[in-house]
Amino acid sequence: MKLISPTDSIFLLGESREHPMHVGGLGLYEAPGGMSGSDFLRDLHQDMIAQQDFQPTFRKHPATVFGGIANLAWAFDDDVDLDYHLRRSGLPAPGRVRDLLELTSRLHGTLLDRHRPLWETHLVEGLNDGRFAVYVKFHHALIDGVSALKVTQRTLSPDPDDTEVRVPWNLPPKHRSAAREQPSLLQSVTRTARSIAALGPSTLSLARAALLEQQLTLPFGAPRTMFNVPIGGARRVAAQSWSLDRVKSVKQAAGVTVNDVVLAMCAGALRHYLIDQNALPDAPLVAMVPVSLRSEAEADSGGNMTGVILCNLATDTDDPAKRLEAISTSMRDNKKVFSQLPKMQALALSAMLMSPMALTVLPGVLSYTPPPFNIVISNVPGSREPLYWKGARLDGNYPLSIALDGQALNITLVNNAGNLDFGLVGCRRSVPHLQRLLGHLEDSLKELERTVGV
Amino acid sequence: MKLISPTDSIFLLGESREHPMHVGGLGLYEAPGGMSGSDFLRDLHQDMIAQQDFQPTFRKHPATVFGGIANLAWAFDDDVDLDYHLRRSGLPAPGRVRDLLELTSRLHGTLLDRHRPLWETHLVEGLNDGRFAVYVKFHHALIDGVSALKVTQRTLSPDPDDTEVRVPWNLPPKHRSAAREQPSLLQSVTRTARSIAALGPSTLSLARAALLEQQLTLPFGAPRTMFNVPIGGARRVAAQSWSLDRVKSVKQAAGVTVNDVVLAMCAGALRHYLIDQNALPDAPLVAMVPVSLRSEAEADSGGNMTGVILCNLATDTDDPAKRLEAISTSMRDNKKVFSQLPKMQALALSAMLMSPMALTVLPGVLSYTPPPFNIVISNVPGSREPLYWKGARLDGNYPLSIALDGQALNITLVNNAGNLDFGLVGCRRSVPHLQRLLGHLEDSLKELERTVGV
Repeated sequence: MKLISPTDSIFLLGESREHPMHVGGLGLYEAPGGMSGSDFLRDLHQDMIAQQDFQPTFRKHPATVFGGIANLAWAFDDDVDLDYHLRRSGLPAPGRVRDLLELTSRLHGTLLDRHRPLWETHLVEGLNDGRFAVYVKFHHALIDGVSALKVTQRTLSPDPDDTEVRVPWNLPPKHRSAAREQPSLLQSVTRTARSIAALGPSTLSLARAALLEQQLTLPFGAPRTMFNVPIGGARRVAAQSWSLDRVKSVKQAAGVTVNDVVLAMCAGALRHYLIDQNALPDAPLVAMVPVSLRSEAEADSGGNMTGVILCNLATDTDDPAKRLEAISTSMRDNKKVFSQLPKMQALALSAMLMSPMALTVLPGVLSYTPPPFNIVISNVPGSREPLYWKGARLDGNYPLSIALDGQALNITLVNNAGNLDFGLVGCRRSVPHLQRLLGHLEDSLKELERTVGV
Repeated sequence: MKLISPTDSIFLLGESREHPMHVGGLGLYEAPGGMSGSDFLRDLHQDMIAQQDFQPTFRKHPATVFGGIANLAWAFDDDVDLDYHLRRSGLPAPGRVRDLLELTSRLHGTLLDRHRPLWETHLVEGLNDGRFAVYVKFHHALIDGVSALKVTQRTLSPDPDDTEVRVPWNLPPKHRSAAREQPSLLQSVTRTARSIAALGPSTLSLARAALLEQQLTLPFGAPRTMFNVPIGGARRVAAQSWSLDRVKSVKQAAGVTVNDVVLAMCAGALRHYLIDQNALPDAPLVAMVPVSLRSEAEADSGGNMTGVILCNLATDTDDPAKRLEAISTSMRDNKKVFSQLPKMQALALSAMLMSPMALTVLPGVLSYTPPPFNIVISNVPGSREPLYWKGARLDGNYPLSIALDGQALNITLVNNAGNLDFGLVGCRRSVPHLQRLLGHLEDSLKELERTVGV
């Protein structure tokens, strides 16, 4: 047994049947040499099931204390039932991507069993285009979303002829630890002060001060929207890839960043979605955007320097050019505010906000009226080159994050070779017709292309 | 809103992520006229999705009170998201019954969402023999297992040419109520005393007295076994059909009842399974067996007269003839004890024991050492004639009940045309290799056949 760190236990204590606290990812693969996904998967499953060594992260779950689970300590299973964690599924006919997303929605809405190591891997066959899919799921107490993506990437290879089958659960640890490659900011804060419990109130005050400082630079506070409500337990997920070149063309023509264009794509899509739902607020939506604040020069200094930026999405204007400009200005200004904060204050803000979770669990933070932001939009670093798994090409790599009370919709994306792969997760009840957002994202990108003339 | 009755709320309050409190059933169908299961299901799904009227039982879930679910009152949804409740699944290749049972195990181990009406129906295609399957799931607070089976049967027809597609959620109510066709014994007790809370202690004393009275007639108390342990949240299910004629032949040759033969089949199988696990106790296992106590003459008097009988399974002897005799004697003697109990005492015992659930939730009852019984074995009445759904024949109809702390394995069976269909549900951790029990059941029946010379 090993005590669970306070920052990790937040994700266990904050979990309920309505609020699953796992992160997921959906990988879409093309089997090599015209092989069918089903045949390829059968062999792959055999290769995987043969690997019965497990790193500690893949053996741990909350220990049972006096017959109950107290979320105080980790237990490490010596005997992992791999048949339980590694599962095969088929799709009903006609086996469209839509059928895959329906299955993924169900898998993403289901709680992990706390009596077992807190992860699952699902191999999915039956897509009518011959591809296959892999849905992975980790409890956030085990590993955060960015690290989960990195673990998946480490099982893959840039070499299509590399036939070794690597599996997440027995990857040798990198320099530091297999699961978290770098100590997260949350951990840094924790290490400084030994525990959030000890510095809780002051951390919260610092975080709130920093947040308010950013809010002052916004033209409006975040409005109440249909996304900022209590949520139920069921989820819908949607996923689609966009060419990075298209986004880069807009970026170059407009003189902004890739992330600015991504945010403008999202802003336009959210505006159209909310108009459809007859729920567009007068004031513009505010997004919470995790960003890397490291300069190129600092890139090798180790450690993350992640900040969280509040961004005005300018959803109140129907002019895409104005929207893009407002977003770019907002990001630039707030990055500046952030970089000028004292280091401890910046760390505290990031620690509190990079996991929006913390906001809903820790007392006092959500006592703002209206909400401090309407939606989290994360652009996570992925791979520049195409990746392969035993020769199967990773066509799409869709991150699936957490919906929360007050944050019923999450948009996370990752770059994968020449694409940006978007994963949307919404509360099934509060965010109807989630898949329509995909169409709105495409329309929004087209609008931006027309506006800047590419 | 409508207050939840105390007896129904037991199943909501007693539920946790480790103890799902739903009952299920797995139906295996053969599509008519050589049609593939997949094609048939596609049409069937369209027919089903078109039926958007919902009886109250299929609209109700616990109401949210002050932002939380208090399990005090039912809310009735006007707008049921049928896409959520009615789901399609495929099987991975090769699509064996085993793959179906693996999927069913997962579905049966997953909690229902309390923010929605507490039921799901899953249409499953991809069996390699061309058949298809339907898994249904109801919360026990909505409907008990026997009534759930009856609802499914009411959607079917003895006429293979009847092409009407009936669905459980819009069946018109029968004389009394759609969900519970007769008031259950639990309800009878409740109605007598207004609530279990009011007569709790005296009911418990009566029940315990009646139970002890039966225990006195047994040669030994129930031993501790590997089935009588705390359980985890994951399940395994197993299912198989046996010809009723085979069981009847043994019954006639031995001069016992069909249920005696069924219990002897189970007893032999449990003995072999426990020997494999190196876990056979010296003392014989005791089964709790719900039985109908109505005589033929009383059959039309209405109301259930269900009793619960403790049966000595004689797993300590390796002689199948002696085992069958001990079981038959035990059932006869304890039925007599039961029928001689004062009516109120018998009702109380049944009310407490027919839902073994009540035992683990209500305080004081499980303070016995050792456990009062080792396993529940229920033989539920089904249909004598073959049943069809839009012409598709119901080949197998496997009831799937609830595993509990202290009751890690449940065996329930139902007669379906010329078969007895067994559904086994076990805690995935406590009852390893559950499917091997199927082989042991077949071996045990063969032993009985040899013993009586049929």
